[in-house]
Formats: sequence, structure tokens, C-alpha cells
Amino acid sequence: MAHSSWLDAFLVEPGATIDLEALDPRDRSRFPDEESARAGIEADAKAIDDLQDRLYAEGRRSLLVVLQGTDTSGKDGTIRHVFGATGPLGVHVHPFGPPSREELAHDFLWRIHRACPARGTIGIFNRSHYEDVLVGRVRGLAPPEVIEQRYAQINDFERLLVESGTVVLKFMLNISKAEQGKRLQGRLDDPAKHWKFNEGDLADRALWDEYREAYRIMLERCSTAHAPWRVIPADRKWARNAAIAAIVRATLEAMDPRYPETTLDASSIVIR
Amino acid sequence: MAHSSWLDAFLVEPGATIDLEALDPRDRSRFPDEESARAGIEADAKAIDDLQDRLYAEGRRSLLVVLQGTDTSGKDGTIRHVFGATGPLGVHVHPFGPPSREELAHDFLWRIHRACPARGTIGIFNRSHYEDVLVGRVRGLAPPEVIEQRYAQINDFERLLVESGTVVLKFMLNISKAEQGKRLQGRLDDPAKHWKFNEGDLADRALWDEYREAYRIMLERCSTAHAPWRVIPADRKWARNAAIAAIVRATLEAMDPRYPETTLDASSIVIR
Repeated sequence: MAHSSWLDAFLVEPGATIDLEALDPRDRSRFPDEESARAGIEADAKAIDDLQDRLYAEGRRSLLVVLQGTDTSGKDGTIRHVFGATGPLGVHVHPFGPPSREELAHDFLWRIHRACPARGTIGIFNRSHYEDVLVGRVRGLAPPEVIEQRYAQINDFERLLVESGTVVLKFMLNISKAEQGKRLQGRLDDPAKHWKFNEGDLADRALWDEYREAYRIMLERCSTAHAPWRVIPADRKWARNAAIAAIVRATLEAMDPRYPETTLDASSIVIR
Repeated sequence: MAHSSWLDAFLVEPGATIDLEALDPRDRSRFPDEESARAGIEADAKAIDDLQDRLYAEGRRSLLVVLQGTDTSGKDGTIRHVFGATGPLGVHVHPFGPPSREELAHDFLWRIHRACPARGTIGIFNRSHYEDVLVGRVRGLAPPEVIEQRYAQINDFERLLVESGTVVLKFMLNISKAEQGKRLQGRLDDPAKHWKFNEGDLADRALWDEYREAYRIMLERCSTAHAPWRVIPADRKWARNAAIAAIVRATLEAMDPRYPETTLDASSIVIR
């Protein structure tokens, strides 16, 4: 499979008007069958590991993967499957929960900037600065005019990252309300999954439409040419993992990181 | 003295064309005499201490003071005199030297953002992100197109800070080449000041004109409505300190931080 064909998969065109309901969470048109898609995830995960080694050795650029999605949309599972084969040396996962007291004492991008990947590494944001225009908007955690300013602040911030050598990949994991219902019920039915359940999930589910609207606005304002959004059909876990693995792999292949050239003449060195 | 009259002192009008040589480093027109200016520094430093207490108690906004200037222009002396009366609880000085290996592995604003003041505090940058368009430009520490991008990146970054509740005060300490010569000679003549001298200062002095040009470009591109530059006549230490103390005080007075209102009924509480 030519991986470059994945570069524009599920891309939100900058400036486009979004109808989220028109984006099918069960879309599997890119996959002829489930079996080959699953095999693809494994192959892509291995390729990502190899590309990450080259990125690290090159030491000039970085990749930032932003994962956003409602509860149960599969952010953890994506990380496990797509980056499971990648050594931990050059991959750092940053989960962003509610901000601490110290974080709240600074602008909302302060804690985000600190966590951005160093050259040569891949950073994965499990939730991100976009929470501040999602839950922030839906729950009214800041005045409306402050929320409004954040879209441009985010675009400017991401432009700094991109101009400084970071490729920014942003994935919205798009699951349906019905699928979320099934997954939450599954957590209730299985005592081994009770730890994953919290009451807040139900409160957020009751605000489903408000969150969808906040996502729509986010996609319309923050899918930029330098850091576009991708909306990934996420009702099927294998399709979600296969799509993201293929896009990450295609992106790293397009970056084409190289081992640095050296002038080392190994034959002239004798280890005694 | 009405301190609000200091708010626009030595201000670089956004969009203005700058002729640095027309700005007199010995200008003392704002001070009738040295004695009253020195008395003013002391009064202003005390007022700043009181205003800082209120800023801290209020806990909603912050002040960032950026000090830039060539070697011997008096950055340390300014901090000592203007903030000498202010308690260290809410004032943090961040000197920015050559970036570390970890800092170099990120965009140039990464270490700057980390050091930005928390709500309720005053942050003082002794040198700053502007080094990256000053020494960075003069010494060619980055490709020209990278340097060019930084001006807009800085303006966007400072807009984020300002929109998030930080007032940004930027001072260029403007000394003449003759005065710098005297001060460097003074360091050589006095063994107790030898520790302040380093060979790099002479190398930078040899590039005086190149630095002046880099300062000019910086002032023209980064004196914005949200975070304007001020060029402070700095050949006379007392005039420099008096001007900056008055501007910092006027700025804090204009911010007018308030002790938070409480509903505490102290008379109902008995300490046993």
C-alpha cells in the first residue's frame, strides 16, 4: 500500500464548514476487510518504531500527536496499538487532566508548551489544549470572550511549533452517541472495568449536543494549513487504529528522517 | 508628581520608523535635578512594594518586565534599585544566558514561556527571548529565514500573555558607545570588578554597529500596541533607575490591583 495516500485521509480542509453529523463514525471505506486492516496496524506500528529511531538519530525535528475525543472514544487504546511497538526512549505520552493550581496561575498554553516534544522525539497528547475550548466552552469555565480568543491563540502557538520543526498531527476520535452508550454500559456490566467509570462521564453524555457543537467550532477555527485536524471514524476500534497508524506512518515517511552523516572511519579504530 | 504622566515616557510608537542615533542616551529632560530624581527612585521603589502586595493578594494578573541592553548597560543595577524594596515572595528574576542542551532541543520560546510570571507575581527577565533576534542575528546563530520568523512569533506569544492577564513592560537600556567604553575600562581598572569582565564583551563591542542595527529592527517590528518597547536613556545610572522606577510604578498604579473582598465577619470569631 502506498502510504502517502494516507496523508490527506479524513482531513478537515482549512476554512471548510463542518457538518459533524455527515461524518460517519462507522466509515470503513478505506479498508477492504478487517483482517488486512488488523495486519496493517501491526506492520505500521513496526514501521513507526523504525522511523522513530531515525527521527531520534537525526535529532532535528519532532512529531506531536494530539488525541481528542469524548469519553470512551479510544484515546488510550489508540496509543497502545499505534505506538505499542515504539521504544519508550523517544516517545512521551502526556495526559492532560484538570489543571493544577500552579497551571491555573498561568495562561492555558503554559502547561502545554512545557510538554511539547524535544527535537528527535514524538510527543503524544492524551487530551490537550483543546480541552480549553471544549469542556471550557461547554461548562463555561472561562468567560465567553476569553474562550473566543483561544482559537487564534492556539493557531499562533501551533504555528510557532511547526515553524520550529514540529509536525503537528491532530486526531479527533469520532464515535457515535449510540456506540458511546454501549461502551459505558460495558464498563458498568464488567466489574473489572468499573475503575474506568466515573459519574462525570454521564454528566458529559447528557451534554452530548453541546460538546458536538464545541467540536464543530474547534474544527472550523483550528484546522489550519500548518496544523490541520483529522476526524477519524472511531466506532470500530480496528478501523480507528488502522487509520491512525497509517497516517502516522505516512507522516513520518514524508518527513523522511535520516541518520546523520558522519566522517567516522571505523576501520582506523581498534578496540583493545 | 502625577505618575500617570510616565505611562508613555520613552515609548516606541508601534509601526514607527526608528533612528536609534536620534535617541539621546544622556537625555535628562524629564528630571529637573539629580537630587529629586534620586529621592523619586526611593519613593517609587516603596510604592512598587506596596502595589506588589496588592497584586499578590488579588492573584488575577501579573507583570512581566523585560530588560534588554548591551553589556554594562545596567540591567543588574536596574533590578537592584527598582525592585530592591520589593519582597522576594512575589518577584522572580530570570537571567537568560546561552541556552542549555535541553532548551536548544525546543523552540526558542519554550524556556521563556516556562519562566513567565504566575498570576499575582512580577517576573523580571534579565535578557530574554529578544536575545534570539539580537545575538542570534548578529552572530548568525540561526539561518536568516528562521530569524525573520521570530519577530512575528514573539508578537503572537506576547499577545497570548497580555490576553491572559500579564502586562508586558519592555525596556531597552540605551547607552552610548563612549559610555560603554568607560564602564568596561572601569572594570579593568578595579580588581574588585574583574569578575564582571569577560573577553566576550570586547568581541561584542567590536560588533557595536551590527548590534545597533539588530536593536533597531527589533524595536520596529516588536513594539506592538499590546506590548510596546521603551528606550531608556541609560548613560546616567540615576536617570535610568528613576525613569524605570517611575514607569513601573505608573503601570502598577494603572493596573490598580485590589485586595479581594471577603465576607469574613471578624467580630464573630474568637481565638482561644
